Amino acid sequence: VQRSLKNNLEIEIKARVQSLQDVEKKIIEMGGIFVREELQEDEYFSHPCKDFANTDEALRLRKNGSNIILTYKGKRIDNITKTREEYEAIVNGEIREILIKLGFSPFANISKTRKIYILGDIEISLDNVKELGSFVEIETHGDYKDGKERIMDLAKKLSLGNLEKRSYLEMVVNKDG
Amino acid sequence: VQRSLKNNLEIEIKARVQSLQDVEKKIIEMGGIFVREELQEDEYFSHPCKDFANTDEALRLRKNGSNIILTYKGKRIDNITKTREEYEAIVNGEIREILIKLGFSPFANISKTRKIYILGDIEISLDNVKELGSFVEIETHGDYKDGKERIMDLAKKLSLGNLEKRSYLEMVVNKDG
Repeated sequence: VQRSLKNNLEIEIKARVQSLQDVEKKIIEMGGIFVREELQEDEYFSHPCKDFANTDEALRLRKNGSNIILTYKGKRIDNITKTREEYEAIVNGEIREILIKLGFSPFANISKTRKIYILGDIEISLDNVKELGSFVEIETHGDYKDGKERIMDLAKKLSLGNLEKRSYLEMVVNKDG
Repeated sequence: VQRSLKNNLEIEIKARVQSLQDVEKKIIEMGGIFVREELQEDEYFSHPCKDFANTDEALRLRKNGSNIILTYKGKRIDNITKTREEYEAIVNGEIREILIKLGFSPFANISKTRKIYILGDIEISLDNVKELGSFVEIETHGDYKDGKERIMDLAKKLSLGNLEKRSYLEMVVNKDG
């Protein structure tokens, strides 16, 4: 998971779709390679002394199968894509207890099945998100300008419509509000 | 590493010794079993919005060989032993970056070689701590009253003198102050 600082930039777009199968068909036709399908159960934590909603940061504990991954997401630095800094660690043991003891509080859960394809150095996720619906996420790392162009180009080829700029977290939290 | 809440109580005493070898000899005579010797490189972090020195808590990232372990230590609940709650997670990846992004700051490093023996359900550490000297730590988990009796009894058998109630962290920090 160790990446250079530059590669910690996650350049990503998301779009709601009617049919994940239609998009999947196109990806396969374009030469996309199926990587895996997984159930991702995410728990988001609030910070003990700053409001992540204001700072546009996030701390997530993701369970997929027997893996647990802790992820920090920095604030978005672009209006169209959801480009942000991201740091990850694979964890094992009492990480949830440690976070709570440090003052972090779980405040939202998101559950989805994700089917992952790769096409060159672009990763495509076909997401079925509980209570939110079906979405396609297209993501790459590295140089921002070049990466953005490549993922916008792919979105066009896949006929993805209006981009969803909110994170799943924001969508879930706003739904309740 | 998953333990019951009760077992998250770490009951521990520490004593400075002149010769680790003398103590080691006694432990072996008593039937102690050698577990391993390791170099432990610890980094301690301050909390983004509370003073761990006041709350008597600690957050530590320990590197030993290829393992990295994140540990939260709660405040001490006893005047003689250094009994405290402890939670641990084995981590892999960008955990240090995540902590720093969340506002935690590294402020002290402690390096030691530790030789570990077990004697029943008691763990004995023979520590050679950089800049501080030689110490023996005796530790157990579980029921506090019973555990305390057992480790105090062992300390007596090993002829350990005055107990050191400060953590290595406090000793290092006070040395600089």
